[in-house]
Order: sequence, then C-alpha cells, then structure tokens
Amino acid sequence: MLIGITMGDAGGVGPEIVLKAHRNGEIGGDFILIGDYEIIEYCNELLGYQVALKRIHEPAERDASFLNVLDLGLLKKERLEIGRISAAAGDAAYRYVEKAAELALAKKIDALVTLPMNKEATRLTQPEFTGHTELLAALCGRENYTMMLVSEKLTVSHVSTHVSMLEAVQQVTAERVYDVIKLTHDALQKSLPIPRIAVAGLNPHAGENGAFGEEEREEIIPAVEKARQEGIRAEGPLAPDTVFLKAVRKQYDAVVCMYHDQGHIPMKLLDFEGGVNVTLGLQVVRTSVDHGTAYDIAYQGKASCQSFISAYRQAEKIIRGT
Amino acid sequence: MLIGITMGDAGGVGPEIVLKAHRNGEIGGDFILIGDYEIIEYCNELLGYQVALKRIHEPAERDASFLNVLDLGLLKKERLEIGRISAAAGDAAYRYVEKAAELALAKKIDALVTLPMNKEATRLTQPEFTGHTELLAALCGRENYTMMLVSEKLTVSHVSTHVSMLEAVQQVTAERVYDVIKLTHDALQKSLPIPRIAVAGLNPHAGENGAFGEEEREEIIPAVEKARQEGIRAEGPLAPDTVFLKAVRKQYDAVVCMYHDQGHIPMKLLDFEGGVNVTLGLQVVRTSVDHGTAYDIAYQGKASCQSFISAYRQAEKIIRGT
Repeated sequence: MLIGITMGDAGGVGPEIVLKAHRNGEIGGDFILIGDYEIIEYCNELLGYQVALKRIHEPAERDASFLNVLDLGLLKKERLEIGRISAAAGDAAYRYVEKAAELALAKKIDALVTLPMNKEATRLTQPEFTGHTELLAALCGRENYTMMLVSEKLTVSHVSTHVSMLEAVQQVTAERVYDVIKLTHDALQKSLPIPRIAVAGLNPHAGENGAFGEEEREEIIPAVEKARQEGIRAEGPLAPDTVFLKAVRKQYDAVVCMYHDQGHIPMKLLDFEGGVNVTLGLQVVRTSVDHGTAYDIAYQGKASCQSFISAYRQAEKIIRGT
Repeated sequence: MLIGITMGDAGGVGPEIVLKAHRNGEIGGDFILIGDYEIIEYCNELLGYQVALKRIHEPAERDASFLNVLDLGLLKKERLEIGRISAAAGDAAYRYVEKAAELALAKKIDALVTLPMNKEATRLTQPEFTGHTELLAALCGRENYTMMLVSEKLTVSHVSTHVSMLEAVQQVTAERVYDVIKLTHDALQKSLPIPRIAVAGLNPHAGENGAFGEEEREEIIPAVEKARQEGIRAEGPLAPDTVFLKAVRKQYDAVVCMYHDQGHIPMKLLDFEGGVNVTLGLQVVRTSVDHGTAYDIAYQGKASCQSFISAYRQAEKIIRGT
C-alpha cells in the first residue's frame, strides 16, 4: 500500500508541509515524495527540521528509515524563487503530477496525495492547464471521474465541477448521474458495507413533480432506479435545500450533488478547513489539500499541516477500507 | 403600526398557533387576525385556551383588550374538516390573502404575517395558484419583489425562487440583480445605517474571470456597479462557496443569491427552524412561517408557535426599524 505525494509548487508551502508532518510523526505508513530532492533538502536545512532524507529514482529503492524523495532533478536551489510565481517551479509541479500518473498507471503506487500547484505559474509553460484534477484525469485517460469532498460531518460528490451553471444543467444526464452514484458507492463501500447515498435534485424542491424543470423525471430518477436495481442503496432526487441536514444527521453517508456549488456551499459552511478533496474514478485514489501555495508564508515554517494530514489519512482510509 | 395575520388553512395548525402565541403573551403590539371568527372561536373552546375574542369587520373596530378577528364569515365549524384537504378551507385561505392585500393597498395594515395554506387544497378551487408569495405579488400588482430569508446567523435574498435552474440562469440579468440588491438594501436600511451587501456569483468561483460562464461580467458586475454608484455598499460577485461563511462571520449583513438553492442550502443548514421568510417589494412587508399546515397534529395544541413568533417579530422589526 504505497502512497505517492507530489511536492506541488516549489516556491509555495508544499515542501515544508511534508517535512514538518513527517518530522512530527503525523504521517506514518509507506509513502514516497515525488519532487525535487535539492529543494526538499534546502527547505529541510533552512527550517532546521533535520529530517533524514533519501534520494531515490524508483519506488523500489525506498528505505523506511528515511523520507524518500523520488527525485526528478528539475530545479536548482540557487534559482528557487520563494513565494513567487515562477515558470520553472510551475512547470516542475506539472512534471511531478505526470510522474505520479505514470507510477499509478504502472500500479507502482496505490494512492496519491497532491500538494498545491499554482495555476498561474503552471500556465506560463502549460497554457492549456485548467486544474490538478483535470490534468490527472487526462494523464490517466479517464473521463468518468468525480470530485468528492469528505469531512467528519458531510461527504459530497459532484456530477460536474468547474463549468458554468448553464453547462452544469446540461451535464445532468442519466448516464452521468448514474456514474457518479456508482463511483461514490464504490469508494464508500471500502469502509461501509451498504453505503446510504442521497441523490440531490437539480431544481428547487427537486422540481416539484415537473413544476420547475424536467431533469429530475427525465435524468435523475432513471439514474437512481438503475443504481437501485444493482443493489446500490441510493435515494432521490431529494430537495437540495434539506438533503444536507439529513446527511449531517447521519441519515445518509454521502450526497451526490448536481453541480459544484450545490456540494461546495454546505461543505465549506460546515467545515471550511477540514474537507478533503478526493478524486474518484482514476486508477488510483487521489486526495488533495484544500489550500493553495500560500506564497506569503512559504519557507517560514508557519504553514499548517492539518489539511495535508487529513488528505493523507483519507487516502489511507480509502485504500485500506478502514 | 398595524400588523395583519392571515389564518391560513382552517384544517391545519394556523388557528391554534395564533391563539396559543397570543395567550402566552408572545405576540404583543397591534394586530388583527384575518380569517373566520367561527373557526377561531371553535379552536379556542376545543383547546380550552380562553382567549378573549372580538369579531370585527374593519380594522378600526379593533379593541386592544381582545384578540380581534376580522371575520370573513366563510366557514362553518360543523363543516370543518380538521387535518384534511378541503376545498372550502383551501378557498377560504385564498380569500384571507385577498382581503389582506386589499387592506395593504388601502394602507390599513403596515405588515402582513401569513400562516400556512395547503397548496393542494387551494388548487381545488383556484387551479392557477402556485404559491403564497406569487399570489400576494399578483394581488399587489408587483413584479419586482424578492424572497428574503432572515435568521440570527444569516440573511439571504434571491434573484429567482420557484423556477427551474435553466430558467434561473436566464433570470440573472443586470436589471433584476440590481433590483434585488436595492430591495435588500432598502429593507435592511430600516435597522442598519449602511448595510453591507454581498452579491454572490452565479457560476463556480464566480466564473473565474469568464472561464466558467459570462453572467458575472455581463450581468452581475454592472448591477453591483450601478448599486455602488447610488451609495449602496454592495460587493461582488463573490465566490458562492465561501460567501456564506463570510456573512456568518458578520463580514456582510446579507447575501444576494442568484437562485433558490444558493440561498436556501446554507440557510436551512444553519437554521432549519428559525429562518423567517420575508417578501420584499410589496406595498407591505410580509413575513411567513416556514412550515406547512401540519394536518397530522392539527387542533391538538401540539404545534410549535416558534416560527410564527419569529415571523411576527421580524415583521415588527422591519416596520419599526429596530
């Protein structure tokens, strides 16, 4: 059960977060850090963390006595621009993700935890870059994936994410809704025997029997019925404005949401800091921190490891089913 | 400062809620109940509340020593169907609202608090009935109105409510967004000198500069700018998934929402019981309970008055500006 961690943008808080979490014994188990050894070593020295590092080039070379860095050798510490947008760091962050996808496709890692990239920095060399999740899905050759947000209080997955509301409405198809129900079910089933999945409606009051929109009857109900026929305990479409309270009260284990903000609004309101972003449907489970590169505090040792630790533990939980 | 209260569906919990709240001294000030005297009297006797009642036909006849019932004389207690859908009660509930609108247009009441109607019951005689708010707006001859939800934690108003998501997207026009900002500002200004109004985006991340949808640039920004030019302290468009937390943390006094569930999801999650529904833009401020007729417990004295008391006090607060 090997977990890969990508270092993210070298000028941000990614390097220090891994070092500090490891030094504090917060991330156990078997993992490798995919990034630049020279940068990690520099950060380790600068902050006086004294973490024992090992440079490796293949996962098999790892040694449990060290923090193992699978070194891509892309960046030099002399040229490192701390706390600033840099084309070199942006491009390197992209390469770490490429390497992670390569290891995932070769079944050399079982899960992936990603540290923050800077969208603007990466776009300087990769103008078509739209986001971490989209990049990973493309590298893995998968179109059928979904973003799930997980916290103690609530778990939500999404039929669509970074598209306009108009396009989000169009993406509510029976096929896609079914796929997201199934992905959500399969991910939760690793730790729950029969996950109870609520499926939100798209329209107010879930359309009130067609009074406000036909998507519930034409798309969502057929998707829920198909899932139920396969033994998935899905219910819906449920009124979007009350389903989250039901889930918070543990009547459901997850809510399948029809668009980005339907899931993100309740999630960020309940647990602004603690939600872990999980990508389902790739060859590996991938979890991500919920913050950015935080350039303003980079290499000062101030960055909180909490979101990273949560992301790491969530990845462990999903692959181990505990 | 006279408040009108409509009795709602006679077979539901409306009558007992007014009687109990009045008996318990929870609703002070000057009000009249618009409904059927015979039904109120019957409920009062059945539950042994011993509230002193007065039958009136004009607001001017009211006497502060009594609970004054402006009697429409539509229903007979012998034919009352408690806890059931009834065409007579559904139609009468519609007439109470008509009467309230008439009093509002004649400036005989300053605010209106509505008790629950049953949509199905009213549709038996008024098939075109879609909802309390829509009916009132039609009776008042107003198209430019909005639904605001108010609680201790959060206040939200809506660009659209009971329409499909597809239609909701189309209703995000600069003119309509401006109108809702203005209505929200004017209502809040009665109790706050310079209300701080957040305007949510329509699309995820408020469109990320046009990456996911153009409505922010083409419609919402011009509306916010127009409001600001008039001295309204409006800000936006803000990312919909974080704006509510900012409002809860008292960075804003209200959030203008682009569609029903954008406002209803955070509201119901934060305060399922306590939110008061306020209609802005009519000739009177109107507030409403947030529950239905609760036929299953009607005339048993069990119904909670809490939502009604909140609605009553909110109406007082808005008209008095305190």
